[in-house]
Amino acid sequence: MIIVMKKDVSQKNLDHVVDIIEKKGLQAHVSKGTEKTIVGVIGDEARLEKEIILGLDFVEKVMPIQKPYKRVGREVHPDNTIVKVKGVEFGGNDIVMIAGPCSCESEEQMFTIATALKKMGVKVFRSSAYKPRTSPYAFQGLGVKGLKIIQKVGRELDLVTETEVMDPRNVEVVAKHVDMLRVGARNTQNFDLLKEVGKVDKPVILKNGVSTTVDEWLFAAEYIMNEGNNNVILCERGIRTFEPLTRNTLNLSVIPLVKSLTHLPVIVDPCHAAGKRGPIPALSKASIAVGADGLMIEVHNDPENALSDQAQQLRIPEFEKLYAELKLVAQAVGRKLV
Amino acid sequence: MIIVMKKDVSQKNLDHVVDIIEKKGLQAHVSKGTEKTIVGVIGDEARLEKEIILGLDFVEKVMPIQKPYKRVGREVHPDNTIVKVKGVEFGGNDIVMIAGPCSCESEEQMFTIATALKKMGVKVFRSSAYKPRTSPYAFQGLGVKGLKIIQKVGRELDLVTETEVMDPRNVEVVAKHVDMLRVGARNTQNFDLLKEVGKVDKPVILKNGVSTTVDEWLFAAEYIMNEGNNNVILCERGIRTFEPLTRNTLNLSVIPLVKSLTHLPVIVDPCHAAGKRGPIPALSKASIAVGADGLMIEVHNDPENALSDQAQQLRIPEFEKLYAELKLVAQAVGRKLV
Amino acid sequence: MIIVMKKDVSQKNLDHVVDIIEKKGLQAHVSKGTEKTIVGVIGDEARLEKEIILGLDFVEKVMPIQKPYKRVGREVHPDNTIVKVKGVEFGGNDIVMIAGPCSCESEEQMFTIATALKKMGVKVFRSSAYKPRTSPYAFQGLGVKGLKIIQKVGRELDLVTETEVMDPRNVEVVAKHVDMLRVGARNTQNFDLLKEVGKVDKPVILKNGVSTTVDEWLFAAEYIMNEGNNNVILCERGIRTFEPLTRNTLNLSVIPLVKSLTHLPVIVDPCHAAGKRGPIPALSKASIAVGADGLMIEVHNDPENALSDQAQQLRIPEFEKLYAELKLVAQAVGRKLV
Amino acid sequence: MIIVMKKDVSQKNLDHVVDIIEKKGLQAHVSKGTEKTIVGVIGDEARLEKEIILGLDFVEKVMPIQKPYKRVGREVHPDNTIVKVKGVEFGGNDIVMIAGPCSCESEEQMFTIATALKKMGVKVFRSSAYKPRTSPYAFQGLGVKGLKIIQKVGRELDLVTETEVMDPRNVEVVAKHVDMLRVGARNTQNFDLLKEVGKVDKPVILKNGVSTTVDEWLFAAEYIMNEGNNNVILCERGIRTFEPLTRNTLNLSVIPLVKSLTHLPVIVDPCHAAGKRGPIPALSKASIAVGADGLMIEVHNDPENALSDQAQQLRIPEFEKLYAELKLVAQAVGRKLV
Repeated sequence: MIIVMKKDVSQKNLDHVVDIIEKKGLQAHVSKGTEKTIVGVIGDEARLEKEIILGLDFVEKVMPIQKPYKRVGREVHPDNTIVKVKGVEFGGNDIVMIAGPCSCESEEQMFTIATALKKMGVKVFRSSAYKPRTSPYAFQGLGVKGLKIIQKVGRELDLVTETEVMDPRNVEVVAKHVDMLRVGARNTQNFDLLKEVGKVDKPVILKNGVSTTVDEWLFAAEYIMNEGNNNVILCERGIRTFEPLTRNTLNLSVIPLVKSLTHLPVIVDPCHAAGKRGPIPALSKASIAVGADGLMIEVHNDPENALSDQAQQLRIPEFEKLYAELKLVAQAVGRKLV
Repeated sequence: MIIVMKKDVSQKNLDHVVDIIEKKGLQAHVSKGTEKTIVGVIGDEARLEKEIILGLDFVEKVMPIQKPYKRVGREVHPDNTIVKVKGVEFGGNDIVMIAGPCSCESEEQMFTIATALKKMGVKVFRSSAYKPRTSPYAFQGLGVKGLKIIQKVGRELDLVTETEVMDPRNVEVVAKHVDMLRVGARNTQNFDLLKEVGKVDKPVILKNGVSTTVDEWLFAAEYIMNEGNNNVILCERGIRTFEPLTRNTLNLSVIPLVKSLTHLPVIVDPCHAAGKRGPIPALSKASIAVGADGLMIEVHNDPENALSDQAQQLRIPEFEKLYAELKLVAQAVGRKLV
Repeated sequence: MIIVMKKDVSQKNLDHVVDIIEKKGLQAHVSKGTEKTIVGVIGDEARLEKEIILGLDFVEKVMPIQKPYKRVGREVHPDNTIVKVKGVEFGGNDIVMIAGPCSCESEEQMFTIATALKKMGVKVFRSSAYKPRTSPYAFQGLGVKGLKIIQKVGRELDLVTETEVMDPRNVEVVAKHVDMLRVGARNTQNFDLLKEVGKVDKPVILKNGVSTTVDEWLFAAEYIMNEGNNNVILCERGIRTFEPLTRNTLNLSVIPLVKSLTHLPVIVDPCHAAGKRGPIPALSKASIAVGADGLMIEVHNDPENALSDQAQQLRIPEFEKLYAELKLVAQAVGRKLV
Repeated sequence: MIIVMKKDVSQKNLDHVVDIIEKKGLQAHVSKGTEKTIVGVIGDEARLEKEIILGLDFVEKVMPIQKPYKRVGREVHPDNTIVKVKGVEFGGNDIVMIAGPCSCESEEQMFTIATALKKMGVKVFRSSAYKPRTSPYAFQGLGVKGLKIIQKVGRELDLVTETEVMDPRNVEVVAKHVDMLRVGARNTQNFDLLKEVGKVDKPVILKNGVSTTVDEWLFAAEYIMNEGNNNVILCERGIRTFEPLTRNTLNLSVIPLVKSLTHLPVIVDPCHAAGKRGPIPALSKASIAVGADGLMIEVHNDPENALSDQAQQLRIPEFEKLYAELKLVAQAVGRKLV
């Protein structure tokens, strides 16, 4: 940590800062430059909260040097983490396709879609039984009834299943029925939920919030890992920008950045950012080209009559065509889409 | 709802749209202009989800006409809602000062601060027992022990108390100990939490998320009201922008906008956006001038040694000076600061 | 244009709106719904400025239906525009590589880089003689001396040349020396400059501003085309978001959106958004996969000693490796990188 | 400047950094911590461009310590600058009201408005003869004819006049006809224009761009001052955020921040951010309360028939009422509105 003092700081105030630092078991190194006096902090800066120093009236700014997280960073864990679930590997050379409807609506709908995807070779099946909806009047999901359908589909068709969990009270029941848990964009900083999914022994797909910074997103993963669950997969799903013509801006440029900072796998959900079917193929190709370890794509047998996300779920034949095209892009960057 | 069709839409597709609309019990009004064909939907558009129409390939755009919320809007409830709690009124001519430390740290700290504030005339006392922290390694609050201290302070000094609730599992215990509940910026769209605080008969202070739109914020209030709790107070706490020199941008211009859309009281928390003590006086004055119905300000007897928000809590004498200055601004706009 | 009136609008005010519309030679269509009264405007809505209606106190909102630009839109010109310059085609099946140093620094530097690029097959050579710099104390470019070097390189090595123009007073001299003009991100809405480059008969590469909306960007192209120059190539160069860890966010998801709205070619500059060498290869691959018609990449023989953009210019061997990899991605999406 | 090296940096690379620093005439101070090696740069860091160091592959990050501007900063000029023009003072205890129509439309319109404002006591009269318009088909201003009207109004009514200049070629003619020049939001980083207005001996009102950072805005002022013109007045006019319900977000929280960094006067234009008449009174009051040194407000005798900004120009009686209310707010914060 580097502390820049305001111009003409007194010796007494300088001593005060040094004192705070040393009481935390750290060393202070004072350096008086031509224009500014700065204090360098030597040791584990996690022991000293930035705000303590920033609150001093004679301090101009405080600049952390060390990465604040311990478990998610490449510094402590340089090699990629491979998250394995029933033979599928996230974070290795394979790029994993996750596909399925937005919502679990009925057993018939689920089996129709899952059977078609299974036939194409898709290994991981998505669908939601709990739905975070902006409006309280929108469809809120089938709940436990939906979880049972998801479990049945997974067992009968031998598919890896995943679903969203929103409420800490539901983590246990969700984990009993599916293979992977998903934390959505509105819950990236729902810390009580993160702690609960951290206690479960199933992989967690953690989406970014629409305006979480990369550091906040990584800290959310740290919350999960801090409880003992190391199988976290990050999922970019778009950010909020000033552009009115799209729902969100899919942040593809965050992928190389995040992969340089963390050893965790990073996948992309192009559908929620797009909000419409049209751009999904182009965004999916770009996700693979930019280095994502997987894709999550919404597919429905009858999107016009779906109970949610009607505009952004691909029809089954549209998905089949895209899946084939994506395999070529994966090859072109030396990877394999499964 | 106005539906704009893509150029050269076929009659068959146009009929399909009309059919969807009529099946929802609504009327469709087709209008062929010189360049575009548009379809107007007549009736309660809440019955027809925008995405259903947007998902049709021959539709260019869909523009809602009606406000999507029912309970928070001025259209159904033109007069200001006054939220009353133990003789304090939010939303009337009074501007209510809420002050107190960031965190409840100890009985001694709490009584020291509360006694000083009480003496100045402050009626509502803030403090947190549960803390949402970006890092899992930061102070997480005293929990139930803190709630008991808050309750004791409130009773002994006859102050209205409020505190944050983050986890739906804690709503009941929090509501037992304090007079008002607070939902923080990271939980604005934690829908399960909103539903729980909606079932309680205590007022709820609902902050905006750092990037929630006004519609999303109002919908969050709608979630609470939809469960039967009409005593919602909105609290602006800053938004995320591109500027690196401040933590957040306090969005004072949202106050007249929100007050034009909703009958609920709207207050301002200038501290979390500022992140530093310096700008808080100016931002507080502006909050009153722009039309806020209250202020929430962090005050601490010893901020340098506080366990959180060390840089942004005013010292007691600083607050006392500001409180006096703010009364003058309130007078200048024809209101009274209590 | 759809005009939504405030609740309980009087007949007199409704008549006033109709009167305004009809005086502009347009037709008004009044529709009284269950909750709102709306007025539809039939005819060319470009005749009626949105603000005129929005300024009326009894109007709630105004929603345009027609696209406001005339020349850039696909509606009037459905097929792709191919911009041709000395045998190179932008906007067709080819993806065009534009490469070269940030700044034109000296004849030697320019020939070293250009010769290496020419040998690899690059056809379009970039470099700047006028530099927009945030600080007045940074290197401002060689000016006319630089233009002469660019011209010499282009002639001797038979390369298409392009360079930035910032000042309307320099458009003529720039156009005399190079094959293509470039308008940078800070000048996207420098309307006097746009008008000048619109009078020239050389293609113009028009970057988005870091926070221009898509409509503003397309209108900037419309300014150029309105003066008679139809050879406009749009270039995405990153947008400003809330993330502090990257300079800008390369907005790859804007490419399919923009290509759906306009017939003009769209290319990507991944370097200025990245601000660092590291992510440029991944972003370049993604640019091709997402559908860009070209790339602009900064390449330098000695970036450590360059006079600008030292951190984001690729070294010559780095570029050579990337160029080969990009050709594979282009093939995978059925196109050819030249 | 503090340079943080990547983990396990070699001695050779460390020496290379030190060498670069020393060749610039600066001193390097290497400090090996428990986790990171950092290099402190001692001396005037303006001599060393951040990008040169950031471009080195073994460098993790570069953190400037000194403020990069020389003339605009409070560090070199701690006292407020007072900009004086014909007896009006910006930056002292007075808060200066600038009012007038968006566009100069005709002699009659201008005299009608100016006469009314003069009578109320307004001293500075605004209006535009050159209009930056998103669309090339919108009213572009009266040009020189407008300048002559502005000059006539100023002379006959003894008002200080100001107007926008957009094109470096027009700076001379504008400066001949008016008392103060205005640089608008789209030209904040039009460096050639800034240099031209820097050569003139009339005060310049410099608006922020809708997404310029504070540092970029201050650097724009530095460009002007670097040419010799020290009479720069900063004007906040709103920033671009994610909120679709307002045109821009008036950034009132930037005022205390900017005033802490620079000695220049800072005023607020609430009209362009609002885009509508409704919120202008509240925003104006807040501007004064937050510490602005002046206000710029659009006033028109017949806004419905204005040629631009029809929705956001106050009617004359509306302005008169507001002007009186604002004087009370100014008093409440110990200042005087003129």
